Amino acid sequence: MPVQTLKWQDNALVLLDQTRLPEEVLYETCSDVETVAQAIEILMVRGAPAIGLAAAYGVVIGAQEAIDCAPAEFRRRVEASIDRLARTRPTAVNLFWALDQMRALLSTHPDSGNQTIRDAFLATADRLFEEDRRICRQMGRNGAELLRDGSQVITHCNAGGLATADYGTALGVIYAAQEAGKNVAVFADETRPLLQGSRLTAWELMQNGVDVKVICDNMAASVLRSETIDCCIVGADRIARNGDVANKIGTYGLAILAREHGVPFYVAAPVSTLDISLASGEEIPIEERDPAEIRAGMGKVTAPDDVPVYNPAFDITPNELVTAIISEKGVVHAPFEPTLCTWVET
Amino acid sequence: MPVQTLKWQDNALVLLDQTRLPEEVLYETCSDVETVAQAIEILMVRGAPAIGLAAAYGVVIGAQEAIDCAPAEFRRRVEASIDRLARTRPTAVNLFWALDQMRALLSTHPDSGNQTIRDAFLATADRLFEEDRRICRQMGRNGAELLRDGSQVITHCNAGGLATADYGTALGVIYAAQEAGKNVAVFADETRPLLQGSRLTAWELMQNGVDVKVICDNMAASVLRSETIDCCIVGADRIARNGDVANKIGTYGLAILAREHGVPFYVAAPVSTLDISLASGEEIPIEERDPAEIRAGMGKVTAPDDVPVYNPAFDITPNELVTAIISEKGVVHAPFEPTLCTWVET
Repeated sequence: MPVQTLKWQDNALVLLDQTRLPEEVLYETCSDVETVAQAIEILMVRGAPAIGLAAAYGVVIGAQEAIDCAPAEFRRRVEASIDRLARTRPTAVNLFWALDQMRALLSTHPDSGNQTIRDAFLATADRLFEEDRRICRQMGRNGAELLRDGSQVITHCNAGGLATADYGTALGVIYAAQEAGKNVAVFADETRPLLQGSRLTAWELMQNGVDVKVICDNMAASVLRSETIDCCIVGADRIARNGDVANKIGTYGLAILAREHGVPFYVAAPVSTLDISLASGEEIPIEERDPAEIRAGMGKVTAPDDVPVYNPAFDITPNELVTAIISEKGVVHAPFEPTLCTWVET
Repeated sequence: MPVQTLKWQDNALVLLDQTRLPEEVLYETCSDVETVAQAIEILMVRGAPAIGLAAAYGVVIGAQEAIDCAPAEFRRRVEASIDRLARTRPTAVNLFWALDQMRALLSTHPDSGNQTIRDAFLATADRLFEEDRRICRQMGRNGAELLRDGSQVITHCNAGGLATADYGTALGVIYAAQEAGKNVAVFADETRPLLQGSRLTAWELMQNGVDVKVICDNMAASVLRSETIDCCIVGADRIARNGDVANKIGTYGLAILAREHGVPFYVAAPVSTLDISLASGEEIPIEERDPAEIRAGMGKVTAPDDVPVYNPAFDITPNELVTAIISEKGVVHAPFEPTLCTWVET
């Protein structure tokens, strides 16, 4: 992977600014919690696993900001940092999963000094980062078994290296297939409104030498009809216990179109994306974002100023449309619930 | 209808520049055939019926340009103008239907002078224009019967006044329902890549006091699931004898999503959009447009410069996904072929 999504450097979180791609490859340094939180909110860093990692490092920064405080005040300020980071985006569960692990350190270090706790935060964030790299590669190998040499795949949004530490979930499957000597060609939905498909997925696949063709989201049905498509592969922001999947808006429609054309629909996500506390996708909160993202696409006025807009960032794909879920633990077909619970609990 | 799409004025074709909407309401005057042809190619004027009308007036302009030529040369140059206008866009059959009527005048006026033929061209273009206004209103009344008070409708692209002389096909149905005292609320697919939904449909519905909400194309599935949607209504660029419909890319996918959610899918188009010479939609030529429309959405770079792109302007919706076709002659359900043939032949 030629480009790193995020890294810890000189006691700060350095983020590849994904709002500037593909025009510019720029890194931004976040040295305070508010900057990290806003970077998550504006999608400078995005993708469920990457959001979790950014938030974890955000907590380290929160601890650094309060390092000279009295212990009780230090803990109070760290808790406030965690709360701020948790308010950035509601849907991707990896955010809360990562923050919960950071928060737990406060309990396991009841009498430690501030610096010790800060160092424990950093060690945990680094561990999550390294685990993400390992997990994505294992997930990729598990999923690559599903792809033949010469496969054509449709993907939606960006579930690639840019959505994780550096390798990707859905695109990790494609990279792993490529590493196993299989040619895979990808149709990338551009993914309105923020065009993560055309701006990010196309860019990173080209960087990695994977054949990619960009299509508008509304062209997927035609491609499914006119091309030999082997499967659709997408990532996830949260998966309920029954296998319902929250992912980027448009995933649900693509899953219907895939079934209509007899094409398997795969979801690739780490176990940290599973939320077995939720019985079904109906319980997953869906973020609604600024109408300006649609009214002024990429800065250009593309609708009347005052037109009402509906802009949900995610949708729920019911489990009956999901052929299989791929994680670092394996590949599961319906019924999903027993295996998903086992994956989380072991 | 507050704004006119095209008009004949001072021996020239005056077009509302639809590439500038909604930011600016500007009219452009086309005084030569090449300008008319390019206006059609760049979608300054678009929509199957409006393209046909613009081309008809383009032939009048072609006759004016050659008015001082010897009769044989005049006819040769008029034929060349018709050929140029026919090469602008391949899918909408109304273009060829209108040009065929203009070309036929040359045969029915074998011995007429240039000015007489030019005047006959203008009379025919004016007749087509007035017929379009009448036809759209009748189509609207026919389709309005299908809508209840309080209906919620999804539409795709722009099949409104901006796609016709002044009233619209799919949106004409909505206007007619409104005129009959029924409230209708519209979800408008923004319709990538050229955003005719958010730029044009939203704008003209607001101008006409119709409730409208803009969604990205990939949100239609979520809207169909979460809202009570009474039907989808779209226009058409060409309809084959069996009822297969060529329309703006994304129509096919929307039709699948509508059926999945048990929502009727209606196509509103004048009889001039029927092409009963074609047995099925497979024979309809599909225009593929410039990749730049996708790579640089509305002028802003939104994909890597050199990324391959697939950009079909239209798709084919098979007749089994079409609940009914609405024209000025009535409303037809499957089987479509007998009625469509009757509509054309009577």
